Amino acid sequence: MTEEPEPTPATDGAPAPRRRGRPSRKAASEGPDARTRILEAARTEFAERGYDKTSIRGIAKAAGVDAALVHHYFGTKDEVFAAAVEVTFEPALVLPAVLGGDPDGLGERLARFFLSVWEDPGTRTPLLAILRSAVTHEAAANVLRDFVLRRLLERIAAELDVPDPTLRAELAASHMLGIAMLRYVVRAEPLASADPEDIVAMVAPTLQRYLGEG
Amino acid sequence: MTEEPEPTPATDGAPAPRRRGRPSRKAASEGPDARTRILEAARTEFAERGYDKTSIRGIAKAAGVDAALVHHYFGTKDEVFAAAVEVTFEPALVLPAVLGGDPDGLGERLARFFLSVWEDPGTRTPLLAILRSAVTHEAAANVLRDFVLRRLLERIAAELDVPDPTLRAELAASHMLGIAMLRYVVRAEPLASADPEDIVAMVAPTLQRYLGEG
Repeated sequence: MTEEPEPTPATDGAPAPRRRGRPSRKAASEGPDARTRILEAARTEFAERGYDKTSIRGIAKAAGVDAALVHHYFGTKDEVFAAAVEVTFEPALVLPAVLGGDPDGLGERLARFFLSVWEDPGTRTPLLAILRSAVTHEAAANVLRDFVLRRLLERIAAELDVPDPTLRAELAASHMLGIAMLRYVVRAEPLASADPEDIVAMVAPTLQRYLGEG
Repeated sequence: MTEEPEPTPATDGAPAPRRRGRPSRKAASEGPDARTRILEAARTEFAERGYDKTSIRGIAKAAGVDAALVHHYFGTKDEVFAAAVEVTFEPALVLPAVLGGDPDGLGERLARFFLSVWEDPGTRTPLLAILRSAVTHEAAANVLRDFVLRRLLERIAAELDVPDPTLRAELAASHMLGIAMLRYVVRAEPLASADPEDIVAMVAPTLQRYLGEG
């Protein structure tokens, strides 16, 4: 199994503005606030309309800016999607804390962190939108895979002292993703109504086995 | 955690024809062959068009029968969907063989069976269609949950000698569902290109822990 090279970061941190479109002097002077507004609008549009029905034009309108400015900051629709998804995954920034503690408690901390993100409606709604987009649109699945999931998984894999760390991180991620599907999308009982801590107690040893065994 | 009562089977085996619609004398005389053709057409239509864009009328046209005959045999669109999904899950009929052998090998047999179903394009395509429908349409998710998943999980749970057998069967199912998502939908590497037997070797102990521990 070969690890693929790191993709070129397209939206890492605050990227240099792209020379696309022709933002008016006024729009360009709106600076970082406009960029934040565009991202917020993109996140809302993708969450409410889905990948297919969201357009650069619609995002620009919701953000109160010219469509050219959206192009200017982010490029294509796929790149706006990637940036909006990354905003949603910001809770993942606490991952170092999850990864940093006692190695024997890694599975438990990861299970609890993952469930807390999905239990919070503020993060669950955009996550569901991303899941829907990825399942129904190959372009969205590609963005999720190449920009978001890979970085997230590689950050986790980098902390692991096991063979095939990326595969093991993916197996752990697959379990949590499947739990999200059955608990929050399909709402299969008894999983849908189970106490989060009961799920953590059952799932933590599985994640620990994938991530912690040498 | 309470187990819910068994749902009333709506499409088990060969149900008595429903008295809906007004099938013509000719159509009604087409008998079981027409029923099979309708199911095949429904499976194809749902797989190719998705839940939303599939109609009773379209299924009838593809099967070469009157729409009333579709109503007559299956009832509503949701009921046709349930029946079509059950046809897709027919490989699950071999579940007793998976469940019946050496209890210590249950996790391994289940992981291998699951991957074989998804590796076969003939079953993967309709499974992907079901997954897409369930993620994007609540009605499809409800059908999947109430008619298909519940019966499948309860059949597995009935064979288990563990506490909370349905929850444990769901956790095992969630892991396999998540693997299907990452491997076949998102196509995250290295999972997407991993040898099925390598995945079986990694995943079998997890399934065994859920299904085989007392």
